[in-house]
Amino acid sequence: MPTRLSNYFLRTLREDPSDAEVASHRLLVRAGYIRRQAPGVFAWLPLGLRVKAKIEKIVRDEMERAGAHEVHFPALLPREPYEVTGRWEEYGDALFRLQDRKGADYLLAPTHEEVFTLLVKDLYSSYKDLPLSIYQIQDKYRDEARPRAGLLRGREFTMKDAYSFDYTDAGLDASYRAQRDAYERIFTRLGLEYVIVKADAGAMGGSKSEEFLHPTPVGEDTFVRSAGGYAANVEAFTTIVPEAIPFDGLPEASVFDSPNTPTIATLVDLANANHPRPDREWTAADTLKNVVLALVHPDGRRELVIVGLPGDRDVDLKRVEVAVAPADVEAATEADFLAHPSLVKGYIGPWSPTGAVLGEESATGIRYLVDPRIVDGTEWITGANVDQKHVFGLVAGRDFTADGTIEAAEVRAGDPAPDGSGPVELARGMEIGHVFQLGRKYAEALGLKVLDENGKLVTVTMGSYGIGVTRILAIIAELGNDDKGLIWPASVAPFDVHVVATGRDAAVFEAAESIVATLESNGLEVLFDDRPKVSPGVKFGDAELIGVPKIVIAGRGVADGVVEVWDRATGERTPVAIDEVLSALR
Amino acid sequence: MPTRLSNYFLRTLREDPSDAEVASHRLLVRAGYIRRQAPGVFAWLPLGLRVKAKIEKIVRDEMERAGAHEVHFPALLPREPYEVTGRWEEYGDALFRLQDRKGADYLLAPTHEEVFTLLVKDLYSSYKDLPLSIYQIQDKYRDEARPRAGLLRGREFTMKDAYSFDYTDAGLDASYRAQRDAYERIFTRLGLEYVIVKADAGAMGGSKSEEFLHPTPVGEDTFVRSAGGYAANVEAFTTIVPEAIPFDGLPEASVFDSPNTPTIATLVDLANANHPRPDREWTAADTLKNVVLALVHPDGRRELVIVGLPGDRDVDLKRVEVAVAPADVEAATEADFLAHPSLVKGYIGPWSPTGAVLGEESATGIRYLVDPRIVDGTEWITGANVDQKHVFGLVAGRDFTADGTIEAAEVRAGDPAPDGSGPVELARGMEIGHVFQLGRKYAEALGLKVLDENGKLVTVTMGSYGIGVTRILAIIAELGNDDKGLIWPASVAPFDVHVVATGRDAAVFEAAESIVATLESNGLEVLFDDRPKVSPGVKFGDAELIGVPKIVIAGRGVADGVVEVWDRATGERTPVAIDEVLSALR
Repeated sequence: MPTRLSNYFLRTLREDPSDAEVASHRLLVRAGYIRRQAPGVFAWLPLGLRVKAKIEKIVRDEMERAGAHEVHFPALLPREPYEVTGRWEEYGDALFRLQDRKGADYLLAPTHEEVFTLLVKDLYSSYKDLPLSIYQIQDKYRDEARPRAGLLRGREFTMKDAYSFDYTDAGLDASYRAQRDAYERIFTRLGLEYVIVKADAGAMGGSKSEEFLHPTPVGEDTFVRSAGGYAANVEAFTTIVPEAIPFDGLPEASVFDSPNTPTIATLVDLANANHPRPDREWTAADTLKNVVLALVHPDGRRELVIVGLPGDRDVDLKRVEVAVAPADVEAATEADFLAHPSLVKGYIGPWSPTGAVLGEESATGIRYLVDPRIVDGTEWITGANVDQKHVFGLVAGRDFTADGTIEAAEVRAGDPAPDGSGPVELARGMEIGHVFQLGRKYAEALGLKVLDENGKLVTVTMGSYGIGVTRILAIIAELGNDDKGLIWPASVAPFDVHVVATGRDAAVFEAAESIVATLESNGLEVLFDDRPKVSPGVKFGDAELIGVPKIVIAGRGVADGVVEVWDRATGERTPVAIDEVLSALR
Repeated sequence: MPTRLSNYFLRTLREDPSDAEVASHRLLVRAGYIRRQAPGVFAWLPLGLRVKAKIEKIVRDEMERAGAHEVHFPALLPREPYEVTGRWEEYGDALFRLQDRKGADYLLAPTHEEVFTLLVKDLYSSYKDLPLSIYQIQDKYRDEARPRAGLLRGREFTMKDAYSFDYTDAGLDASYRAQRDAYERIFTRLGLEYVIVKADAGAMGGSKSEEFLHPTPVGEDTFVRSAGGYAANVEAFTTIVPEAIPFDGLPEASVFDSPNTPTIATLVDLANANHPRPDREWTAADTLKNVVLALVHPDGRRELVIVGLPGDRDVDLKRVEVAVAPADVEAATEADFLAHPSLVKGYIGPWSPTGAVLGEESATGIRYLVDPRIVDGTEWITGANVDQKHVFGLVAGRDFTADGTIEAAEVRAGDPAPDGSGPVELARGMEIGHVFQLGRKYAEALGLKVLDENGKLVTVTMGSYGIGVTRILAIIAELGNDDKGLIWPASVAPFDVHVVATGRDAAVFEAAESIVATLESNGLEVLFDDRPKVSPGVKFGDAELIGVPKIVIAGRGVADGVVEVWDRATGERTPVAIDEVLSALR
């Protein structure tokens, strides 16, 4: 039976929703696919459910092909397993927490590593049971600080999450590869261009992780790639550590007056005008900038750290967040400075004529972490921890020592890829999938072990693999639209064909009915605009808004045995004999 | 591709789960269909998901056939709409409530009347848009006080809930009928015997409501039915009100001493031995028992009421609950009696020689509600509100007046059906579906109106229709099992056929492979026990536990071209030529 617009539960809207920031959100609401219930929480209307089901079918097909078994966990889970792994705390405000009538703690799961691990622990005990990959397609929850962009970042969203279980590292590699391959097939079938980039594992922990990014200038993630094939998101990019330089012959450091140097540029000018080594032109890259940050640990503890990096680079807070996870990071406040009077704003450095030295010998009790480029023997212009004084020619390893290194500096086009494959360029993308080698973190925390061939208990090694189904739907809508409405690819369109009967001539409606019947009996899914009193203009407008890729228009031409086939993407309309509509559509 | 037990994610368990009270819970866990995550919260394993999907498919088919459109609402919903209808409070402890990071109130929806109403209000505005029926199959939440019996009463459960929208009462009747008919088709397809009983609308409000009950002695609901076709759950049963009796000639009431009458029986004995009218034999039905109950209103207010009913009947608290909804009801406590010294325990009555009279003139300030049988002119033996004294021949309407009537008394076999269709019998059943005519309650509260033919705004009238998908799965499992395991009906079995290859003979496994291939190419879903090192006994035990209705055993007979077809329900095993397996199964 065709779906008839005369009685379908659908109302297209003329007005954009006032809270819509992006095209997918705007158009999915206007075309009657979704409807907002609360910030980041949507109801699915019939058209939206159809597209979602098609994406899920493709994902399910490829999961089965990859040998994964489908299960389904509840969204409501008890606190205990997440307590054991520390994520009850680590998720912070992003976790929806609640209590039942007895006061027991529950959460709405943002991801399910813990309970999948416990399920396998419950049922499996031998290496013979492995490898195992299980997955679910399920609604997840995350209390985003700023739910926005419609389905692109919702607070309730549908995910496919898969988990693999192996007892050897080679087994994990193979399971990981099977999921990764399945992801490539899924995105190919969805018609979604993708780049696989090295990723930081973030709150997941674990050793190896890759993201599938759809490259697009409007993407929210920045990644880097080299001509030689390196690709990583900026959080995962690692700096090549230069060789250390011998100290021999490096001149002594010297303090100089530096009033009125509010910027790195003014400091560099002053240094070049005024320093004791006129043979060399000093640049911002020769200054050592020291930035005070505050880490907020999962237990609520607030810790100041100072990050030293070359003055020509800014701190990239997203990179710092990854480096210090599970702590959160924020800029130091006025109160922080007041609490640490030895921090002289604008003149902070790792060494001081007054003895307030950062680093291992720190007088401030604050950890000092430096960019990996600050290797032994490098010379720096930096603050002297005294108001209006800087120091020149301060040598790392000789004059100061840091407490450690940190990847805190921004990545720039032209930076060398860590694998030696040449300079990187920066690009933007949207995350469409993520594969992790979790390793033994969860299995260890929750005690998942099996007996190996020798009867010895070994801890299982795991992978975790996620695709945001509703997010992908939004991304596809984001890619396929114009000022008239949505343009779906055939693989996920809510219908294969949208047949429009125009005018009031009964013969036209009869011809349209017969075309619809022919298409349906040949296995095509048809949306039939059979509304008797709606003008052709409104019908065409709705067809463009809804975005079914092929539209068949039955109008006056029916008298001559002709209809039009309208390609939604190109806008091209082609007259086709009624008998040939089916073949024209194929 | 067949599902092969050699690598299927399934482990059957030998031990019953310790918390399982009923067969369906015990067997669904042991056979690897579900796994407990928290009280009343379960994960679905591959076998369980398959059965659930089959039930959902049948429900979806019949919803589509009834003209209902599928949508999908979130489980996480904002408080506001439920506040407007009063259900945020009324649901009491059964509602899972939570707050987001900004402190806004949310709930996990136990049912969706409010948001469906708002959705239609958002999109529709004219009578021409109606009738409309929309439904979803979705996971719901209810914080049951005693989650038990596995899926029969979970805290997370999958429901099909449908809602109809009309602008005339006749329209609602037609929409209600369409859903009711669909329910009959669904239960018939599921092979579930059902009785349609009049039901109380409970917290749903509204005017008309029927329950689909599966009659079974182990059901948790009691219902009544008459040979003449009346059927109702006991909460909805109404008592036939007798004719009033003229007061003329009824003797005066008289007080008598009644120490040592702890029970109705002792009181009746005393009255018969001692009363002023020896012509008549008095029975428990002539005594007026007065029971003190406490109502807890949604706003937390506690109100005492006294319920008067014939002494041969007990109070049925479930019937009282319905009568006083949305208040909760509980027995009065010692503290309640202490707070009301005029209530003389064991001697409470509606009239007193001391003037402490219940009813309109109540000296206690407590409402006095009576059974509908207490009509004007009926004579009663009842308490005198004085210690160790009762009163004899107290006449309703002459000597006392109640504040109202209440259906509080238990229903008994032999009671006359309210429609005059004869005496009722009592039976037990399990609720498998519920259809409600909500009327205009929700539309009124939330302002859902449309323009009618005359351009006048009219309030929409609604229906609400629910089937518990996971509950039905459990009921089917509850009906179909024996001491060996589950026995599924073909309509919802996880597979059509379970093929078992026994022994270690390669020829047997090859024959089994070829049978599996034949069955699958003919559209049958096959579970293939191809485990190489598992004994026939274990394989047969697993097959019985899992409960696929038809089992094909390939063993030594393969050498002679013969296998066995085993009917799980009857236990019958029939030798069948390999070539004829397909036709034998059909």
